[in-house]
Amino acid sequence: MNIVLLGSGNVATHLAYALKKAGYHIKQVFSRNIAHAKHLAEGIGAEPIDNLFYITTEADVYIIAVKDEAIEEVAGALRLRNKILLHTSGSTDIAVLQPYSTAYGVIYPLQTISKEVALDFSKVPLILEFSDAQTKAEILNLAFKLSPLIHEYNSEQRKCLHLGAVLACNFSNYLYAVAHDFLQEKKVDFGLLKPLIAETANKIQTHNPNDVQTGPAIRNDGVILDRHLALLDAHPDWQQVYRILSEGIARRHLENGKKM
Amino acid sequence: MNIVLLGSGNVATHLAYALKKAGYHIKQVFSRNIAHAKHLAEGIGAEPIDNLFYITTEADVYIIAVKDEAIEEVAGALRLRNKILLHTSGSTDIAVLQPYSTAYGVIYPLQTISKEVALDFSKVPLILEFSDAQTKAEILNLAFKLSPLIHEYNSEQRKCLHLGAVLACNFSNYLYAVAHDFLQEKKVDFGLLKPLIAETANKIQTHNPNDVQTGPAIRNDGVILDRHLALLDAHPDWQQVYRILSEGIARRHLENGKKM
Repeated sequence: MNIVLLGSGNVATHLAYALKKAGYHIKQVFSRNIAHAKHLAEGIGAEPIDNLFYITTEADVYIIAVKDEAIEEVAGALRLRNKILLHTSGSTDIAVLQPYSTAYGVIYPLQTISKEVALDFSKVPLILEFSDAQTKAEILNLAFKLSPLIHEYNSEQRKCLHLGAVLACNFSNYLYAVAHDFLQEKKVDFGLLKPLIAETANKIQTHNPNDVQTGPAIRNDGVILDRHLALLDAHPDWQQVYRILSEGIARRHLENGKKM
Repeated sequence: MNIVLLGSGNVATHLAYALKKAGYHIKQVFSRNIAHAKHLAEGIGAEPIDNLFYITTEADVYIIAVKDEAIEEVAGALRLRNKILLHTSGSTDIAVLQPYSTAYGVIYPLQTISKEVALDFSKVPLILEFSDAQTKAEILNLAFKLSPLIHEYNSEQRKCLHLGAVLACNFSNYLYAVAHDFLQEKKVDFGLLKPLIAETANKIQTHNPNDVQTGPAIRNDGVILDRHLALLDAHPDWQQVYRILSEGIARRHLENGKKM
């Protein structure tokens, strides 16, 4: 099974190396930026291209791992009606590929993917969707070679998962960054928070996060809330984040009718 | 060295068991709620009391692990001017103890502490502050028996650390809870996010969180942002959280002048 990879970003890069490791041959890597295409193609022994005019028709699967808003454009430009088209997006409907092939699908790797950070693909849940049973049969084998954590969801559910990932992960990382910059400003070692951050993420592996909420907001501790807001005086945007999230915690606590 | 513990909440409970494990004898546990005092006292072989009138004067150290706003009241009610008074609060100044003893200090365990979740105290950083060198000498030994991760900071720095912990941990946990409840509503398995949440917390053990930010907000992906806001239509409070945090990420990204 020969593969062409369209894209050279975070997802494309990690996917390319995982496919190579699983024994697949990637014939071409496409990027509008030829330097990016070359950089990735060299690492995996593929041909780099920066123009879809040069795309091979000899591959079996074309994986479109580009920005969401470019997926449809790339799919249309391929002009390959009898090849399997896949995209890798959490928030893009499978139907976007329907006008451009008879066999298509989605492989969404549910993981926070940075180019700089090594990733063990075998621990990444893959969220799959297919146009039809035959395409599913052909791609499932490839997917299982990447990761045993295979889940089939429809586009609506996949979009919800992606939103859940943004809430739980992208936003958490932003809060880590705010804490980092705030402590740096106050000459306090951010490293001291690292065990705490690890433990917070670890707790919810086995507990419902609603049951392990701690902190001044859930205790309705107005004295501390005011002190913290005062400490953030120089940063109105961080103050707003603090206020909105504390209100959210207090409200949920009331709704759940729990006492601490 | 004999100890009296004032309080029976999350911090008091974990501290009591850690002290017992380190070989210390806790003579009494005080709580306004005698059932709470008994529950904790039984577990560690102490005498439960619910009235400070019965407090022993025979101990060396009195650890006040109560709600922040009750610390001063409890310290005053003790009437023990020549004993070491300690509080365990991240956000309360050491000076609150000054009127009530000549020897006092703070042991702030920097960890997210839930009664329901087991805690290895030897991995908890302890943030210490003391009234004077002699008190420091007397308490440092006790602190090191609880955890090798000892740090001395002043009250202002400790308050900043506590705020950092609220931002990075309490608020992250709240976002996990929002994702949990949203996915439950949409009949999607929250468990799928667990590897992602673990990896997000893991990344910042070795990377500056600013360098590993991912997601639609940092890519300025307005199409996805709008789709996500639409998915949250039934929950205006979650929409507001989504909007504020996405704005924060986009703004920080601009300030840092980075390109993704």
